[in-house]
Amino acid sequence: MGLPDPQLFPVAAMADASRKLILNNRSALQYTLPCEPLKEKICAYMAGRGVDCSPDSVFLTHGAQQGVYLIAKLLLDLGSSIVEESISYPGFQHLIDAFLPVVLSVPTSPVDGIDICALERILKGGARPAFLYVMPTAHNPLGVTLPMVKRRRLADLAREFRVPLVEDDPYGSLFYGSISSAPIRTFDKNWVYYVGSFSKVLAPSLRIGWIVAPPEHIRSLSVIKEASDLNISTLSHWLVDAYLESNEFAAHLRMIRSVYRERRDAMNAALLEHFGSTATWIVPEAGVFFWVNLPDSVDASELLTTCLENERVAFLPAEACSRGKHKNGMRLNFSRCNPGQIADGIGRIGRILHRINSVDPQTMRNDFD
Amino acid sequence: MGLPDPQLFPVAAMADASRKLILNNRSALQYTLPCEPLKEKICAYMAGRGVDCSPDSVFLTHGAQQGVYLIAKLLLDLGSSIVEESISYPGFQHLIDAFLPVVLSVPTSPVDGIDICALERILKGGARPAFLYVMPTAHNPLGVTLPMVKRRRLADLAREFRVPLVEDDPYGSLFYGSISSAPIRTFDKNWVYYVGSFSKVLAPSLRIGWIVAPPEHIRSLSVIKEASDLNISTLSHWLVDAYLESNEFAAHLRMIRSVYRERRDAMNAALLEHFGSTATWIVPEAGVFFWVNLPDSVDASELLTTCLENERVAFLPAEACSRGKHKNGMRLNFSRCNPGQIADGIGRIGRILHRINSVDPQTMRNDFD
Repeated sequence: MGLPDPQLFPVAAMADASRKLILNNRSALQYTLPCEPLKEKICAYMAGRGVDCSPDSVFLTHGAQQGVYLIAKLLLDLGSSIVEESISYPGFQHLIDAFLPVVLSVPTSPVDGIDICALERILKGGARPAFLYVMPTAHNPLGVTLPMVKRRRLADLAREFRVPLVEDDPYGSLFYGSISSAPIRTFDKNWVYYVGSFSKVLAPSLRIGWIVAPPEHIRSLSVIKEASDLNISTLSHWLVDAYLESNEFAAHLRMIRSVYRERRDAMNAALLEHFGSTATWIVPEAGVFFWVNLPDSVDASELLTTCLENERVAFLPAEACSRGKHKNGMRLNFSRCNPGQIADGIGRIGRILHRINSVDPQTMRNDFD
Repeated sequence: MGLPDPQLFPVAAMADASRKLILNNRSALQYTLPCEPLKEKICAYMAGRGVDCSPDSVFLTHGAQQGVYLIAKLLLDLGSSIVEESISYPGFQHLIDAFLPVVLSVPTSPVDGIDICALERILKGGARPAFLYVMPTAHNPLGVTLPMVKRRRLADLAREFRVPLVEDDPYGSLFYGSISSAPIRTFDKNWVYYVGSFSKVLAPSLRIGWIVAPPEHIRSLSVIKEASDLNISTLSHWLVDAYLESNEFAAHLRMIRSVYRERRDAMNAALLEHFGSTATWIVPEAGVFFWVNLPDSVDASELLTTCLENERVAFLPAEACSRGKHKNGMRLNFSRCNPGQIADGIGRIGRILHRINSVDPQTMRNDFD
């Protein structure tokens, strides 16, 4: 799963902030309006990612998942369609299936990401989905980060065909090069609904996500959210606001990026050692996942069963994120374990892989449609 | 609104518990499974209300509103109907309207509550709603608490006609007599879905509610909830678990009941002094609201506008909780303000009421259909 390492949580600062907050700010425990100072800090954080937005375009949510859910409730009418990639985040598939939409699938690849030409053909063919769902940075599960030219193209298509684009960006701040990739939201503020989260960079159980949306839709999102859970966890929100006030966040982000970069490199080294020519993968620029393509002959779901039973190692098999259509890929997480555990785990999967399969690497595929 | 008084929040104990929790239990900040010890403590709390349930029938939610929302998602199919009272909780009306159900309205009254005979006629007539929604203790907004014989009848009807009954009980522990009324859930465990909350008795922003449901439905609720917001605020849940561990909760409950009882009595005294024969009301046994019937000639929404403009006092007018059908009633909250403020506020409304209206009390009604 996309679990951050709890050993990296800034617990001392958060414990101190929570004690002071509960003692001194009784409205933090009451039904209250969303925390405005937090919205302002989120705008500053987004500015660091290149996104220009103001608090009136920020809507606070119970994690990114609720952000996408509320957008789906806002945009999806009964019987309408949505666009998703042929391999995409299982949490999104689960979320969207509850709305019973027509799912338009666009091919994607762990090397290049979404096939923009295929998407354009769908739109030029007359399809008008309620929205396009993409995760342009550190795609879950493929790990791929889209180049700037594709981001711009996606914004152009959304605008040209007047189709909202939902940009899910939980991993955007976990980049391992020198700079982060500008969100698609930087290219269009009318058709792109950006969804962010502190789950991966601070702590998941705070359940703090946000939407950056055209301001005229914020009121509707609020009405939809109020019906479903009345009020946000303002306690968490004020807590994170107090933590961000301390200015420790920038150093914390640098620290977790450094730790996760080391783990990414450890996983790459372990894959080179233990998977060798049996598999292919791209070293991710950002996020917490490697996607590994296995030979066509390998069913990753079966491999998972064997790995769990014999080696107590787990991963997400391709089947779980492709609506059952693909078998020979696996998503590996490198954020949760230390380098030693990573080397050990990859070694164990590698042993099973070699035992059940002796393969011709020519049979491996890099495109999914 | 149904706001508790933040001055009564147990902040010292909560601040201490939160600091220790964040420092010592890193899984409290991580994605985790729902907090089992909290479920056990909720079972003990429910046992104190006479409800026999085990942790496998308890489902933790982001407040009671989400509890009712998830049950609606579980039980409501497209085009099906639900039963609500002719005057009912506006938050429920807002929630359920998003599902576009056929709304079957049953008459109710601030004196006797839901008209069971009318409900029985609807069911005997062949209607099979997806569920019945009731708030048997401290009805919001009517303030009425159903007698035991009506609770038993409701459970019998649910069972006889195989129609689930959703028992919304946020105020069940705020009773001002010697004992609490047994929830309807005590009379049936297969057809009654009980929804509880710590919002009114601890603090709202913790967002801790729960459903007590037949265990075979817990898994489905989990699937529905995961799609909408992935994970609960485990931090809040562990925090309340730690607070409950300290055994201060029973004394806290006695304290807030005592304070709110005094405020209820202050509001009754103020109503007697300032509303006199212009209005009728029942002194509530539980909860945080008085319902005041005004003469037919008074439009409470217009009164509200005048009160806000001239006296800066607010209440909920009947129109807002009767789908626009009733005008001459008002819901008054007594939990948020101290006795002096209550006397002052009722005095101000009374002045306006007498100025705009000189009435014949014979025109007042006590039944709503």
